[in-house]
Amino acid sequence: MQAKSFMDQDFLLSTETAKRFYHDWAEKMPVLDYHCHIDPKEIAEDRKFETITQVWLGGDHYKWRQMRSNGVDEAFITGRAPDREKFQKWAETLAMAAGNPLYHWSHLELRRYFGYNGYLNGETAKEVWNLCNEKLKEDSMSVRNLIRRYHVTLLCTTDDPVDDLRWHKAIAHDPGCEFQVLPAWRPDRAMHIEKPDYADYLKELGEAGGMTVDSFERLKDVLRCRMDHFQSCGCRAADHGLEYMPFVPASDQEIERIFAKRLSQSGQALTREERDRFKTAFLLFAGREYARRGWVMQLHYGCKRNNNRRMYEKLGPDTGFDCIGGCGSTDALADFLDCLDSGEQLPKTVIYSLNPNDDAAIGTIIGCFQDGEKGIPGKIQQGSAWWFNDNLTGMTAQMTSLANLGLLGNFIGMLTDSRSFVSYTRHEYFRRILCDLIGGWVEKGEYPTDWKTLERMVRGICYNNAVRYFGFPVPEAG
Amino acid sequence: MQAKSFMDQDFLLSTETAKRFYHDWAEKMPVLDYHCHIDPKEIAEDRKFETITQVWLGGDHYKWRQMRSNGVDEAFITGRAPDREKFQKWAETLAMAAGNPLYHWSHLELRRYFGYNGYLNGETAKEVWNLCNEKLKEDSMSVRNLIRRYHVTLLCTTDDPVDDLRWHKAIAHDPGCEFQVLPAWRPDRAMHIEKPDYADYLKELGEAGGMTVDSFERLKDVLRCRMDHFQSCGCRAADHGLEYMPFVPASDQEIERIFAKRLSQSGQALTREERDRFKTAFLLFAGREYARRGWVMQLHYGCKRNNNRRMYEKLGPDTGFDCIGGCGSTDALADFLDCLDSGEQLPKTVIYSLNPNDDAAIGTIIGCFQDGEKGIPGKIQQGSAWWFNDNLTGMTAQMTSLANLGLLGNFIGMLTDSRSFVSYTRHEYFRRILCDLIGGWVEKGEYPTDWKTLERMVRGICYNNAVRYFGFPVPEAG
Amino acid sequence: MQAKSFMDQDFLLSTETAKRFYHDWAEKMPVLDYHCHIDPKEIAEDRKFETITQVWLGGDHYKWRQMRSNGVDEAFITGRAPDREKFQKWAETLAMAAGNPLYHWSHLELRRYFGYNGYLNGETAKEVWNLCNEKLKEDSMSVRNLIRRYHVTLLCTTDDPVDDLRWHKAIAHDPGCEFQVLPAWRPDRAMHIEKPDYADYLKELGEAGGMTVDSFERLKDVLRCRMDHFQSCGCRAADHGLEYMPFVPASDQEIERIFAKRLSQSGQALTREERDRFKTAFLLFAGREYARRGWVMQLHYGCKRNNNRRMYEKLGPDTGFDCIGGCGSTDALADFLDCLDSGEQLPKTVIYSLNPNDDAAIGTIIGCFQDGEKGIPGKIQQGSAWWFNDNLTGMTAQMTSLANLGLLGNFIGMLTDSRSFVSYTRHEYFRRILCDLIGGWVEKGEYPTDWKTLERMVRGICYNNAVRYFGFPVPEAG
Repeated sequence: MQAKSFMDQDFLLSTETAKRFYHDWAEKMPVLDYHCHIDPKEIAEDRKFETITQVWLGGDHYKWRQMRSNGVDEAFITGRAPDREKFQKWAETLAMAAGNPLYHWSHLELRRYFGYNGYLNGETAKEVWNLCNEKLKEDSMSVRNLIRRYHVTLLCTTDDPVDDLRWHKAIAHDPGCEFQVLPAWRPDRAMHIEKPDYADYLKELGEAGGMTVDSFERLKDVLRCRMDHFQSCGCRAADHGLEYMPFVPASDQEIERIFAKRLSQSGQALTREERDRFKTAFLLFAGREYARRGWVMQLHYGCKRNNNRRMYEKLGPDTGFDCIGGCGSTDALADFLDCLDSGEQLPKTVIYSLNPNDDAAIGTIIGCFQDGEKGIPGKIQQGSAWWFNDNLTGMTAQMTSLANLGLLGNFIGMLTDSRSFVSYTRHEYFRRILCDLIGGWVEKGEYPTDWKTLERMVRGICYNNAVRYFGFPVPEAG
Repeated sequence: MQAKSFMDQDFLLSTETAKRFYHDWAEKMPVLDYHCHIDPKEIAEDRKFETITQVWLGGDHYKWRQMRSNGVDEAFITGRAPDREKFQKWAETLAMAAGNPLYHWSHLELRRYFGYNGYLNGETAKEVWNLCNEKLKEDSMSVRNLIRRYHVTLLCTTDDPVDDLRWHKAIAHDPGCEFQVLPAWRPDRAMHIEKPDYADYLKELGEAGGMTVDSFERLKDVLRCRMDHFQSCGCRAADHGLEYMPFVPASDQEIERIFAKRLSQSGQALTREERDRFKTAFLLFAGREYARRGWVMQLHYGCKRNNNRRMYEKLGPDTGFDCIGGCGSTDALADFLDCLDSGEQLPKTVIYSLNPNDDAAIGTIIGCFQDGEKGIPGKIQQGSAWWFNDNLTGMTAQMTSLANLGLLGNFIGMLTDSRSFVSYTRHEYFRRILCDLIGGWVEKGEYPTDWKTLERMVRGICYNNAVRYFGFPVPEAG
Repeated sequence: MQAKSFMDQDFLLSTETAKRFYHDWAEKMPVLDYHCHIDPKEIAEDRKFETITQVWLGGDHYKWRQMRSNGVDEAFITGRAPDREKFQKWAETLAMAAGNPLYHWSHLELRRYFGYNGYLNGETAKEVWNLCNEKLKEDSMSVRNLIRRYHVTLLCTTDDPVDDLRWHKAIAHDPGCEFQVLPAWRPDRAMHIEKPDYADYLKELGEAGGMTVDSFERLKDVLRCRMDHFQSCGCRAADHGLEYMPFVPASDQEIERIFAKRLSQSGQALTREERDRFKTAFLLFAGREYARRGWVMQLHYGCKRNNNRRMYEKLGPDTGFDCIGGCGSTDALADFLDCLDSGEQLPKTVIYSLNPNDDAAIGTIIGCFQDGEKGIPGKIQQGSAWWFNDNLTGMTAQMTSLANLGLLGNFIGMLTDSRSFVSYTRHEYFRRILCDLIGGWVEKGEYPTDWKTLERMVRGICYNNAVRYFGFPVPEAG
């Protein structure tokens, strides 16, 4: 095998069939980003950035972690050091990240958005800094144009039930924005009953819904009311963040007792059993509502957050101190899905565990709840490799597991899960890996040259399957 | 690398050494299928099939799962739709199953048994349907001839202690059946004390053994008596199906108390602790009996069954709603084996976990109980990748783990675990993967061209190791 | 691809870039073995061996396990059979170990130390026996010269706090020994409060420290005193062996109560909760001391020991009857590190789990406690693949995980963890795998030809990173 040059047009494509799949089909598909964390305000205002440090290091805790790992002082990470110096430290860090997805993501971004085809390290940092900042002055680098660069037809943000969705409405009514920006429902703050500010949040939620939340029944009422609001803004998907999947069913009275205990004057702490009961009830309620509305339920679990108390007190959450969780059992997930299914109230569901050890179990659990009677291919999905697993080996492992245990052809594919406007390159990264995987099977004689089916699978996983699955108001492509 | 055509003679064989191993040695070995679920009555009667739908979709819950996953209505799966339409839905489903073992198994079966060398999808379904059904009319497609096609010398069915084994006897006395069909002992119904029909089953068992089962002591008596019967029919292997490996030892009195509690008029439910104690006692009793008789104990665990209650009520067990279990610890397995070993009553044992996360732990546990004093190479084995893991990557991972942690050369190799008479192709599939793995090591210079040892290992894993290990009355081959 | 001959100069190096990395850089680096189990007395006395059986089978439970697995009688393993016969059985066993690291390690040792370039099996055993024993007579085969053969500049043994370190001192003062042999602190016997001989050990420890250990406070005093002694002999590293990571904090009074309970006349057994509390307190104390001293804390966990009681009674511990542990959660590890970190008393830490399922979680946990403020790159490390995982696929998986989740470039690399003087070949084995991994990325265009950074990474992981990390008194190389 001849050595390939770094990140050329056939990056990650190791066979002729893979190249054909990518260049003929995958590369030409638009992007549908059904789960991300970008701020719709910045789209509405079509924000521009001044420095590459703003773009890259403004809020990206993936990068912050690696800088700490390289012994960089916090002043150069989240502190007050000048942007240029922060960038220098990042460039020096990145050079040590051989094999890390950040190495690939960053260089894909440099190539696709900034037209820089070299590599970044401590020595090239100055050149790259100048080049990027010059480029950022161009109109083509506004937030909307970054989105257009990858032909994004639709994206879903992540929104709290109290959100008035004003920016989504503004975008929807802006004739200058031809792509769609839909809200997605993320009611974590309404579920995490153990959080210190839970009572305050309920007040906020009550105000948003025009009622007083003094019981679990009323909580459900106000959430239904907010769901109506989200639905009127085009919402098709909900999402839950969990340390582990709980499944401890309890009676309505018991849930009301737990709720009252938590909100009582004396403010008693709940036991783990009580918290699990409450969250189970919450998720069952939510799932049934989603089923009724045809929404997709996304379950993200397996993350142990804010592990470093010292840094949490300095920087707050989502700053790079989370890890893969080690407790909880996939058995609860199966029982939870069954509980919804037994009442025929199981919505379309996408399961993401941060713990890759769960992959095989999840692959077999989803197979127990596919429901042919509703005619939805792949009604229950395993989500694309998430967060710490969102890398070359992780995505390959997730798709291989999916293929072993189910029908890869029905997979709804990639999402960015990102806070950044330049991370649509991750769809490109995913598609190259996808094409290399399936193309490799064809080259090895493990799948025939059934081009028609292959094209349908590749285009489907890149884009069309998600369009159909979520029922988004965009046409299929290709 | 030149692309290979689909499933040619060198399917899965990526090096010259692998091809040589397969074509010179592996391909020529007979098949010994020491664990399957086929019905001996159908062998005794030398059943023939009328349609490919009968052969493929009659009872194969692997395929049913995938059809549900493709959004196919249950009418076309287990329902009353015509065979031709069911086959069409299956063909459309299979095309989406790139990377799935069913894709390979199905096409191997089409090639080896039906002589069809194309690929199956919605468009070719009609052609394949006609071709297969025509072929099924031939005498060569009777159950016995399907078995002969792969040179099966001996197979073990899976049988309940109450079984009178009449069909095994009929086959043994039939001069027209030159291969052996032995029973294997599967006393799950006698162990699963929590099942609603447990008391009824004990009655049935008591009748089979000519005694009343009113205590655990008597249960052991009747099981010993039934084991004698099985032994007289050539049984050499037992098998247990478990959600997880329990190990909670208790006194004889405690076990009798639990047994009495379960069978009392009031029919009290047992606690999980009580169930675990009972099953531990049951398995220890069973293991000691097997050791005394020279039987092999197979332990299949890690499966959470019947997860979909709605479908269970419609279709019953073994219909495609099982998943990998997430509870239980491999520590209990080590303690269980130690308990038998410490009394020098540890039988030859084969361990299969459905959870691939257990692979490494199992590989190290078996190494703690190999017993050189009895001169049995590989007395404690990790079984071949099972059920959801029985695929290219799963088998490769299991053999790689085995090689890393022990002596791959002593592995007893493949079994079908199948309900189907056309699944001996899975032995071929396994052998190709085996040859590619070891052949690859030789090609990479990781194992020398010690042809004599290599031949002994390959032939051993394909066939001879199992002959020796179980002590079956067939000669070694090659 | 042309087949390679067995274990040639490019063994495990599958690309030109990998060959270049290995032969230009990695091969030329000295060895730093920061964790092993060799006996310093044998270095002080510059021991020589009489037979290859002494060298290989004298105490190597890795090999013993495989012999048992091959059905070899214990007489030929740990028993009284003649050395020649033991060697024969080992040779026959090894031939079956295709894919096992012992196959590679043994043949690397035959090549590098004994100049034998063939392969060992039952037929060649006699030839190899004669050749090796002849070679062992040479001066070049003394313990010190075996160490010099691989350019070992420094090694750390594993020592109990009661050890007077007389042999370390003797070596330090011996002008004929130019490499350094430092002690490493392993206080397991002071922590394992559940062991039957715990009270006896405390007496021994009290004598070594000149005080009576009648409370946990006094235990900490005596340990501090012994740490001072170790420090005066150059100790830079500590190490703990644990079945699982406990984290159950308790008050000082509670710990004293538990300690008193254990040492009381009546000798009450502790509950698991009490043991976990005690060990948590012990480890927190130890960690804080290490932080103060700048020592590195190594945590080895995930091992369930002495599983075979029958053999334990015959042979004692460390004889080949340990397995990967299946209980415990990585969550406790995160909480333990946080507890130290929150008081700014978290030392440099290296984490090794015997359970490879923990790899991904560990990779994310270490990222939560990297502390840029101290300027140490990779302050918290995941240790190299340990024991049962110390093989080609295990090391590749550990480094791939590390690269995915952090900065591979800062990895401190390999250690032997060995009792043998010929196992420095394992550093060579590791380096070949490392070079093949990174070289492969370059060849596939996944990392650029940034030669300067690549050289720094490869040389760093081979040697320089460990020099810097531990602060050993040897210069960086290359």
